[in-house]
Amino acid sequence: MKAVPQDILESLGAEIILGNTYHLYLRPGHELIRGLGGLHKFISWPRAMLTDSGGFQVFSLAALRKVSDEGVRFRSHLDGSSHFFTPEHSMDVQIALGADIAMAFDECTEYPAERGRAEESLRLTMAWARRSLDHFKAHRDEVVWREELGGQTQNLFGIVQGGMYTDLRKACAERLVEMEFDGYAIGGLSVGEPRALTLEMIAEVLPLLPKDKPRYVMGVGYPDEIEQYARMGVDMMDCVLPTRAARHGLLFTSEGRLNIKARRYAEDQGPPDPECSCAVCRRYSRAYLRHLMQAGEALSATLNTIHNLAYYLGVMARVRQDLEAERTAS
Amino acid sequence: MKAVPQDILESLGAEIILGNTYHLYLRPGHELIRGLGGLHKFISWPRAMLTDSGGFQVFSLAALRKVSDEGVRFRSHLDGSSHFFTPEHSMDVQIALGADIAMAFDECTEYPAERGRAEESLRLTMAWARRSLDHFKAHRDEVVWREELGGQTQNLFGIVQGGMYTDLRKACAERLVEMEFDGYAIGGLSVGEPRALTLEMIAEVLPLLPKDKPRYVMGVGYPDEIEQYARMGVDMMDCVLPTRAARHGLLFTSEGRLNIKARRYAEDQGPPDPECSCAVCRRYSRAYLRHLMQAGEALSATLNTIHNLAYYLGVMARVRQDLEAERTAS
Repeated sequence: MKAVPQDILESLGAEIILGNTYHLYLRPGHELIRGLGGLHKFISWPRAMLTDSGGFQVFSLAALRKVSDEGVRFRSHLDGSSHFFTPEHSMDVQIALGADIAMAFDECTEYPAERGRAEESLRLTMAWARRSLDHFKAHRDEVVWREELGGQTQNLFGIVQGGMYTDLRKACAERLVEMEFDGYAIGGLSVGEPRALTLEMIAEVLPLLPKDKPRYVMGVGYPDEIEQYARMGVDMMDCVLPTRAARHGLLFTSEGRLNIKARRYAEDQGPPDPECSCAVCRRYSRAYLRHLMQAGEALSATLNTIHNLAYYLGVMARVRQDLEAERTAS
Repeated sequence: MKAVPQDILESLGAEIILGNTYHLYLRPGHELIRGLGGLHKFISWPRAMLTDSGGFQVFSLAALRKVSDEGVRFRSHLDGSSHFFTPEHSMDVQIALGADIAMAFDECTEYPAERGRAEESLRLTMAWARRSLDHFKAHRDEVVWREELGGQTQNLFGIVQGGMYTDLRKACAERLVEMEFDGYAIGGLSVGEPRALTLEMIAEVLPLLPKDKPRYVMGVGYPDEIEQYARMGVDMMDCVLPTRAARHGLLFTSEGRLNIKARRYAEDQGPPDPECSCAVCRRYSRAYLRHLMQAGEALSATLNTIHNLAYYLGVMARVRQDLEAERTAS
């Protein structure tokens, strides 16, 4: 996690973190990580982890992408070297990394996309889902910590795509459920579409996904979004927003969004969020956090991120409590 | 402290930290900090603090410096704005910041310096020491926390200069002691001279400084240096080395210096220092710390700095223990 040490993430109550397959594949390399006992050991994180398939970063960061039915050829954004990712290769890399949850290799359909383009993209994602699952099943026993954990292996999630076409989305969800993944993600959202459309896609797809397996919406969102989706039945979400925004000085607070770089906080002795009890809000003033950003101090990213993570984890803790109370009452 | 939050500094056992007057004067400004209750409150650091006089950074960072008997005119390295620092102004700024220890405004003589240049520089430093002390005495009651702390005020230290000429150094020390500062620093060392010369200057000057007041050598040093000087009777030292080196990947360990960027640590599962019990050595491998540096992750600076500070504080803890044991035995 950028700028925050693992022990602080633990004390914040983070139960799972995400590793980027594309980045780790390029540097330090998945074979190195496998050799060191897997990603948990490499970064010293004993709690749960998830790796993405690498596809999203290949499509958003890498250069000279060439997609075929077989897979994606691309050049590294680091050194321009040429690489070829297939569903099978994504599985091999993710098995080497050894996160608790691996993701099927998919193509994230861009927005907006014509129906023909969305259909073609979905065809690829479905074929790749099948190949991901087959390869994963054939090799899941190879995860480096299997013996240590009494034969336990990783979990593979399928990813629902289909652009903004509900019939494509539904067809995709149904076929993925037939394939029997360990969990199901809804991908290709939060790619520039209006929020009402995001919501519609989730609302249409969610009922088709089994309740007794994790249901995961990828790449969302703002605090009110994650609360809304969680109350609809989404179990997992991931997003760079709380950490990336923190590094740019945007804090999420009980009073709304706060741009800590703003001149008006220069002499503000109050905590970033008066209702927050995180280590940052208990100790530091808005004036100090603003100064750290103005001075370009690395500590700024650390403190802002700790607060935003505390805020997000606080939102989810409250939602869980509410849902538990509703269940008890009913 | 760059890249390390205050609560971690506390848990490392740091008892005093240094604030740079030049930087704080330019940004966020000493009047803003005074208005917020002083530097301790501004950065939320309840333990001891020291501010330098601003002189060293004016001479090393600022542009277009013009030195006169009156003071130094210079341009900010941030925005090119013109500023004038005098001994009186340095005192005013340091009183506004309100650290426990303030330093007299001096000129740090460069190395090498001809005798005539060292004499002239020392003449300036002596005149400025007198003016610093007079102005400090006249205004020390203005420190913002005075009433809160039952009338307590800051301490002002004088700084021994004189280049690498022992007779100039001794004459300076004697005259500063006559002026009766609250403590005495030896400045103008570790500016490029051979270490034997550093040692000689300290050895010659130290006996002239009162034992019952803090004796402070500025700008040193490597772990073996600070141990050596502490055993000679030096009470305080300051240096960017442990933190700056950490940010560049140089770790101080019981086995010597370790360049964590080196290829040979890429798969090294051992801790940075096998004999160290700091939070970083207990949790992370050399392989992971190397990866963080290679990937340009901010977390690298944080973890490396925590270890180096733990190492330095460990050196000093051991020296203190030894000195205490010697005292008890004799």
